[in-house]
Amino acid sequence: MDQEKINEFLDRAVAEILPTREMLVDKLKKGPIRVYLGVDPTSPKIHLGNAVALFKLRQLQDMGHQVVLLIGSFTATIGDPSDKTSARTGLTQEQVNQNFKTYKEQASKILDFDKVSLQENGEWWHKMPVSEFMGILSKVTLKQVTERDLFAKRMASGGEVWMHELMYPMLQGYDSVVLDVDLEVGGTDQTFNMLMGRKLQKIYSNKEKCVLSVPLIMGTNGLKMSKSEGNTVDLTDSAPNMYGKLMSIRDEMIPIYAECCTTLPWSEVQEIKENIASSENPIDLKKKVAFEITRFFHDEKSAMDAQNQFKSVVQGGGVPSEMENVTVNPADMKFEDLLMGTGAITSRSEIKRLISGGGCSLDGTVITDPNFEVTPKEGGILKIGKRGYYRININE
Amino acid sequence: MDQEKINEFLDRAVAEILPTREMLVDKLKKGPIRVYLGVDPTSPKIHLGNAVALFKLRQLQDMGHQVVLLIGSFTATIGDPSDKTSARTGLTQEQVNQNFKTYKEQASKILDFDKVSLQENGEWWHKMPVSEFMGILSKVTLKQVTERDLFAKRMASGGEVWMHELMYPMLQGYDSVVLDVDLEVGGTDQTFNMLMGRKLQKIYSNKEKCVLSVPLIMGTNGLKMSKSEGNTVDLTDSAPNMYGKLMSIRDEMIPIYAECCTTLPWSEVQEIKENIASSENPIDLKKKVAFEITRFFHDEKSAMDAQNQFKSVVQGGGVPSEMENVTVNPADMKFEDLLMGTGAITSRSEIKRLISGGGCSLDGTVITDPNFEVTPKEGGILKIGKRGYYRININE
Repeated sequence: MDQEKINEFLDRAVAEILPTREMLVDKLKKGPIRVYLGVDPTSPKIHLGNAVALFKLRQLQDMGHQVVLLIGSFTATIGDPSDKTSARTGLTQEQVNQNFKTYKEQASKILDFDKVSLQENGEWWHKMPVSEFMGILSKVTLKQVTERDLFAKRMASGGEVWMHELMYPMLQGYDSVVLDVDLEVGGTDQTFNMLMGRKLQKIYSNKEKCVLSVPLIMGTNGLKMSKSEGNTVDLTDSAPNMYGKLMSIRDEMIPIYAECCTTLPWSEVQEIKENIASSENPIDLKKKVAFEITRFFHDEKSAMDAQNQFKSVVQGGGVPSEMENVTVNPADMKFEDLLMGTGAITSRSEIKRLISGGGCSLDGTVITDPNFEVTPKEGGILKIGKRGYYRININE
Repeated sequence: MDQEKINEFLDRAVAEILPTREMLVDKLKKGPIRVYLGVDPTSPKIHLGNAVALFKLRQLQDMGHQVVLLIGSFTATIGDPSDKTSARTGLTQEQVNQNFKTYKEQASKILDFDKVSLQENGEWWHKMPVSEFMGILSKVTLKQVTERDLFAKRMASGGEVWMHELMYPMLQGYDSVVLDVDLEVGGTDQTFNMLMGRKLQKIYSNKEKCVLSVPLIMGTNGLKMSKSEGNTVDLTDSAPNMYGKLMSIRDEMIPIYAECCTTLPWSEVQEIKENIASSENPIDLKKKVAFEITRFFHDEKSAMDAQNQFKSVVQGGGVPSEMENVTVNPADMKFEDLLMGTGAITSRSEIKRLISGGGCSLDGTVITDPNFEVTPKEGGILKIGKRGYYRININE
């Protein structure tokens, strides 16, 4: 038992440990524990915010504990309560399977899947009869559920809470009972559900599950990182794109990214914290963290190339050596249509706003009229926003 | 199609018809409809209040419509939301089966069971997986459910609503979808649940179910008739007991009992209403209704005997010719223990209160000390409350 590793585990990238830190320490010392993370594969992409919990699991794997990754194959088919639209439509089982496949590919960069116990909650929820489910519901009051921030806020603002959304805490909570775990890890937005699991596990199995929440990190625009904000750094991002995005985060986020999204030694992370606090010029620290994260998810050489490219393009005003192609017909078309062809942005109104705002150029010339007629030429270079470069490829 | 019968059906013992009376008329005229009444067999006894809906079903049977009686074999095992204690304990399947057996015996006095389609909701609820149930819940918002009087009141008074109780409207509502009915009949306390069924049937089957609520009648003490109030007239009551209880109802209830709990011709019921309104001395009307109800659930002779006995005992001060026996040992015992032996009252504190209050006698002598020592004698007569007569039978 490595006391230092335990301490790092308890201190690094942790928002809260419940019911007490002492209880978790005790469990970790007593022997291999079973820890679980639930993942609703609603999207094929993992972003750095999602990765924080995976890094925590990796720490536990390294200490010899048993990691259970629970695929919310059932919960994902009915959608997440925080998003009403998707809650009404939901994913198909096929989409879930496909998404999880890509999820696993990406998560393999952090977790050792040979040692992960994979579970799917569809296993029990597609079998359990309603009559049995009522037994679970009879352990919880409406008040306990509507205390959840999400529901309370939505109701306070006159929004609707659908009955099936209200079931989420019990669904997620009962997963803990089935998995029979000692610890659950999740974002701070999951604390309520994780504690519901603690409550149910205590009732059903008389077992004291601990809950460890990890911080939610901010995205490239300073808001909480999330797909709907469009501010994510994705594990599938190309090295130049990942590096570029990371160089755009706010300075005060540097230590948090170092702490939560890297395997940099804990002592180095603490140094970065101190240096930021002593208001050293942060650009070098940011480069270090951006490099480290890019290196981790790609490799040393790609990270180096990305760093050089960033230097020449963003800092030097050049264009990147590698960029995506956009294939178009050689006929005249509106500038707006040419940009839509790249697929970089799918909303026509957004592309119009971006053009009008001077955010787009053709061969270095900024064009601000979406209706401007252009004749696409082979090898022409389109720029969309700060880092979106596309080479025109004529369809012959 | 008998217009007069339809009119009587729509007018007699009806609290409300939803969404419109016209829609139900239209259905009734178009041909045989499927109507359903849900029964949670939580008690082996049916009282007159429960019988009101059964009389409505009988009217429909007589017009050639199809009656579905749904046994809440699932809902009864988890208990009724209006009663928290039973909600947490629930009935066993065995109790449900036993209760329904006796329910059927009693209800057979009103309904022709050869023509009833019997269903049990355990059939679908014990099979339906939670995943499918979520689809049902996704059609309803929390607000729509908590608008229910029962829940709103309980929450307003600081009481708890348990999550499984909150499921009731959807459970009962979806029963309608499975049964594919044109009409549901139930007490006014069921209107919310019945309308939930209407909503779900519209969503799932695009079918417009009608809802007919029947009035809740008052019991012998002027409060809503219910087991928990202890003011019921039960279908299993002996003829003298039934007659006696009916003679104790409040005068203004006479026309309602005639309307809701008898098969007296509609014209005669209306006459009774008019006579009560013109404040004729109501004792004869009450006798007529008490006789008619007793006759219906027993027979002509028993009703006649009960009437005569009531006259001699209650009005004349005698004792009934027939009464129950209580078998005891010939040893001295406390008066309290002698009374407990009748089984008329199961609570020792209640029997003490009743004795102290002067409500009990032995051979005509009121005894007010529960500890009074008596020597039981063969043929001795115990009186408990107003109409509880027991003949002592010595165990030899």
